[in-house]
Amino acid sequence: MDPRIREHASIVARHSTAIEAGDQVVISAPAPAEELAVALHEVCGELGATPTYVANSARADRAFMRAADPEGLDTAEPKRALFEAADVLVRIRAGRNATETSDVAPETSAARSRVNKPVQEVALSKRWCLTQFPTPAGAQLAGMSTEAYENFVWDAVNKDWDAQRAHQEQMVEILADADEVRVVSGDTTDVRMSVDGMVVQNDYAEHNLPGGEVFTAPVVDSVQGEVLFDKPVYQQGREVTGARLVFEDGVVVEHSAETNEEVLTGILETDEGARRLGELGIGMNRDIDRFTYNMLFDEKMGDTVHMAVGNAYADTVGPDRERNDSAQHVDMIVDMSEESFIEVDGERVQEDGRFVFE
Amino acid sequence: MDPRIREHASIVARHSTAIEAGDQVVISAPAPAEELAVALHEVCGELGATPTYVANSARADRAFMRAADPEGLDTAEPKRALFEAADVLVRIRAGRNATETSDVAPETSAARSRVNKPVQEVALSKRWCLTQFPTPAGAQLAGMSTEAYENFVWDAVNKDWDAQRAHQEQMVEILADADEVRVVSGDTTDVRMSVDGMVVQNDYAEHNLPGGEVFTAPVVDSVQGEVLFDKPVYQQGREVTGARLVFEDGVVVEHSAETNEEVLTGILETDEGARRLGELGIGMNRDIDRFTYNMLFDEKMGDTVHMAVGNAYADTVGPDRERNDSAQHVDMIVDMSEESFIEVDGERVQEDGRFVFE
Repeated sequence: MDPRIREHASIVARHSTAIEAGDQVVISAPAPAEELAVALHEVCGELGATPTYVANSARADRAFMRAADPEGLDTAEPKRALFEAADVLVRIRAGRNATETSDVAPETSAARSRVNKPVQEVALSKRWCLTQFPTPAGAQLAGMSTEAYENFVWDAVNKDWDAQRAHQEQMVEILADADEVRVVSGDTTDVRMSVDGMVVQNDYAEHNLPGGEVFTAPVVDSVQGEVLFDKPVYQQGREVTGARLVFEDGVVVEHSAETNEEVLTGILETDEGARRLGELGIGMNRDIDRFTYNMLFDEKMGDTVHMAVGNAYADTVGPDRERNDSAQHVDMIVDMSEESFIEVDGERVQEDGRFVFE
Repeated sequence: MDPRIREHASIVARHSTAIEAGDQVVISAPAPAEELAVALHEVCGELGATPTYVANSARADRAFMRAADPEGLDTAEPKRALFEAADVLVRIRAGRNATETSDVAPETSAARSRVNKPVQEVALSKRWCLTQFPTPAGAQLAGMSTEAYENFVWDAVNKDWDAQRAHQEQMVEILADADEVRVVSGDTTDVRMSVDGMVVQNDYAEHNLPGGEVFTAPVVDSVQGEVLFDKPVYQQGREVTGARLVFEDGVVVEHSAETNEEVLTGILETDEGARRLGELGIGMNRDIDRFTYNMLFDEKMGDTVHMAVGNAYADTVGPDRERNDSAQHVDMIVDMSEESFIEVDGERVQEDGRFVFE
């Protein structure tokens, strides 16, 4: 086994989820990530925790969703019970085909997200970590050789997370007492929102591995303006490019996309909360130095800002604030490397991708 | 996808487990069996059932067991909760290496079986089916090419189970009111046991796919004599050959094996019930025409009898009879093709592999 896989497993177990003796650990992984699942089983044994191994498969999901009646979908109760009995959930992504679910009707995907919302809620109430195992399909998406992509993934994952945490704390301090955040990029993005009373989180690879962002939730009705998301988003097996959203009083009142607009429409129409922003995130990880068309990495880049329509994480919402509730949480990226800036209460804190404290 | 995989999935869902709308179905499969899992997800969608996909991996099991302290093992509670919330469990076997767990200490394997006994009990209380997906490693074990082995597996699985049921019913009738069964093979096996008051089951591929046996549980204290199991048994990743058991009043009082005797010892020492017989089975499936060193198939051959030390299935034990209880259930085979016979209450019902009604 590549020693970097054992190191990856050790960071998941010892840093991200702090597994200890007696923990019940659910490991969810697709077939190509079996080696990382094996390494995680080994670490569980070392730490006195008990692993349970769950599969995930885009092919199986596709086959089910195409055959099922979207009106008749049920919540996956065994999975909910499984998550409820767990202390820690580790979810590994390792795609073999990013467009595997491209021939599933967006309404069916949205309906399935709705019925499985209680399952996701249980999952998010545990100690959890989402991480990535490199595959040839992931490399292809990034336009890289498989070996170069493996290096890229493990360089981003197997690193000094305490140093990263300290770097990001500077941005947390700026946002902690802030009211208005404005994000401007070229002549296509100019959006303002309040983060007053919200909680700013420092992501140093607890829930996401790699981590490397500072994020919070906007005040639900405060979002005003328009955003063009520069980078494609893979959703439901389809590449949505040129997604554009116009917000009024927190609600998406206009939307379009250059390709697969109906996927974006399907997401926004899932429920009430899907038309509002649930997250504003600022990428700060300088070790992720290129777009790989994988949100888990792209959103952590130092030259990006991302916004998610849909569900707001409970730990980002202040005690006196409303939490945006949705079965969706779809991150989309604005490239901030050129002709761009972030303003916090009128002061520029980032310009063309460079932070004031760098 | 090979059309035989869809047929296989359809038999699992429509014949073996009778999946219907509203059912919660847990599908447990190792990575090489993903295509059958995909086909099962499709059938679940067609039938209005909800699938949950669970992995199983001998490599992951090995890694965990080698790293873990056998004294500190816990029950996998998330898995128990998962099974409890399910209506149907489909377990697919598809090994990549039959000796994968060969370097795990037998005591650790036995300890893990003990702590997970409650999980197995929940599993056996559901509608369940165990089936096989052909892999190159399975073919290698059988000494066959991969393609010939695929043909062998799907010929045995995708067949007319109603006809098989009728064939086997003749044997059920013989055993239903019987008292003593005697099994003799060469000069190495001569064992008697009572089946009086026990329930005889006709296995026409409900729980095992392929099916093809008639089985019951012996009266716990009635087993007398000795048995040499002619065919190797793979247990805990090791090939146990020439296993020999001597019974007195139902208990194994002597045992030996030509290879890996310590594995046999570990099994017998798991708990009280592991030293007693939990099952007597008579193979009756003439479509399985060769040994492939896979118990799921070998025990169904018309020329074999098998006995399992350990747990007795509840549905084979009569209402006034004690059920043998154990964390183990290990089937072992006697080749009945030559110099062999089965006697029921003094009458020969099979001689050299040929039944009286054939």
